[in-house]
Amino acid sequence: MLPPGWDALGKRSFASDAFDAVLHGREDYRPEDIAYFSGFRPPPGFLKTLPRLKAMFSLGAGVDGFLRDPDLPRLPLTRFVDPTLMHEMAQYVVMHILIAHRGQRAFDRAQHQGQWQQHMLQRASRDTRIGILGLGDIGAAIATSLLPFDFQLSGWSRSRKNLAGVKSFAGADELPPFLAQCDYCVCVLPLTDATRGILNAETFAQLPKGAWVINVARGGHLIENDLIAALDGGHLAGAVLDVFRSEPLPPESPIWKHPKITATPHIAGITDARAAFAYVADCVMRCESGRPLENVVDPTRGY
Amino acid sequence: MLPPGWDALGKRSFASDAFDAVLHGREDYRPEDIAYFSGFRPPPGFLKTLPRLKAMFSLGAGVDGFLRDPDLPRLPLTRFVDPTLMHEMAQYVVMHILIAHRGQRAFDRAQHQGQWQQHMLQRASRDTRIGILGLGDIGAAIATSLLPFDFQLSGWSRSRKNLAGVKSFAGADELPPFLAQCDYCVCVLPLTDATRGILNAETFAQLPKGAWVINVARGGHLIENDLIAALDGGHLAGAVLDVFRSEPLPPESPIWKHPKITATPHIAGITDARAAFAYVADCVMRCESGRPLENVVDPTRGY
Repeated sequence: MLPPGWDALGKRSFASDAFDAVLHGREDYRPEDIAYFSGFRPPPGFLKTLPRLKAMFSLGAGVDGFLRDPDLPRLPLTRFVDPTLMHEMAQYVVMHILIAHRGQRAFDRAQHQGQWQQHMLQRASRDTRIGILGLGDIGAAIATSLLPFDFQLSGWSRSRKNLAGVKSFAGADELPPFLAQCDYCVCVLPLTDATRGILNAETFAQLPKGAWVINVARGGHLIENDLIAALDGGHLAGAVLDVFRSEPLPPESPIWKHPKITATPHIAGITDARAAFAYVADCVMRCESGRPLENVVDPTRGY
Repeated sequence: MLPPGWDALGKRSFASDAFDAVLHGREDYRPEDIAYFSGFRPPPGFLKTLPRLKAMFSLGAGVDGFLRDPDLPRLPLTRFVDPTLMHEMAQYVVMHILIAHRGQRAFDRAQHQGQWQQHMLQRASRDTRIGILGLGDIGAAIATSLLPFDFQLSGWSRSRKNLAGVKSFAGADELPPFLAQCDYCVCVLPLTDATRGILNAETFAQLPKGAWVINVARGGHLIENDLIAALDGGHLAGAVLDVFRSEPLPPESPIWKHPKITATPHIAGITDARAAFAYVADCVMRCESGRPLENVVDPTRGY
């Protein structure tokens, strides 16, 4: 059961980029009553108006919605590490890789035309290389979910990782060789100054011809015009985008109608209201009892 | 490398329901020269014309294409147990369950209309029950591939199975309770006298309202008119069919245009030519050296 304020939180946070939520769910709060803040993207400058704030709990896996605030209080900030969200992200990525790998869109068109058109896989699964940009909790969950399908898996991250069945590339020097072996390049990086715009003309050119780009991280990772150029030029075969520089994606965006892009409205991983309530309650109890918080963000690292 | 006859075999077998292949790949064979036969669906009566036949090797996972022959020689018959085929079947089933579970078709429509329409999952993954009819090699591979996604998994088979994370139902008595807890019912049964037509009005009525039916086994498992009635009546939410009573699916079939059916042209698992060659070569060497064959079919059981 959720207290009334939390139910409203879930709906409001999901729909809106503005003020997210204040613990206890009251709209008529007094700033000096607020000890804890939880939300996705507090408006810059808002948190500094809370004089007795003790800690902040991001309801998303990413904290870029907090770190963008130049006046962010120097207080503990936690990321939401939610197994449900990890399962959902993995479902989304696996589904879209399989749709592309199996040519399901072509089967859909053939069915629509009433035509029995068998075609083989364009590339055997064992010869298909999937690379994951970002091997944190979510990247690891995606890799684990892909393991049973006989693909070749790799991941790129700041520090080297040791995941069974997943080749680890680490650091800026190993980004080009990583990209060179990605038939599918899946981005689940945190959005930081080091990763902003990482999906651009230069990195696309380093992918093999015919590669796919899947971005489920943040719109800020992708230079949208570069993607469209790489698709139109024929170097990239397709893209799946769940996040955009501007959300909702504006009606005039060429992404909507691009024949090589699947676009979804930021639904790859949906914060589970029950899990979010348990997480925030746990964070508050930890603070109140003096126990350490988990998944505390390092602001200099950005995640 | 495949000898020339085998390349032709792959193509001919894939395209045609008729005569499949004769070992050595020669068209101008003499019946008395043939020691081994390998194919999908030899024409009934053909195999008895080979007086010196020693064994038969099905190129498919199922052997109903052999067992339908009333004059089938009483010789060893093997099934093709191919990891590549198992991976492909698992990919197909996981992809289509995820497309339905995640509501991807609705996102496709919204994108086509240029509309940013977020919707949550209709049912949490942990509350979604997937049941697999048939827990042999392929059913087990499907279950294994579904394990990372936090679904509830079960399977039904003739004898009880012990698969981690998969509730086992066994025998005719446990079919109704199995069906009653399948939000997705996936059929990978062998086609035998005991399973022919098992997907019918009676079994559909035992599924929960809103269930999905996915058939990747044989068209003979499904009473197509019963499926359409259960979909049109609203009891079933959708179906994914890769196999049909008559293949290619006839142009006049209502399945093509049914809004709740995804139909694909028998491509869920495609026999890999390289793996098939290795399998047949292994079978021949086993026979010639007196070693036992693997995956020999029990004709009374039908698989």
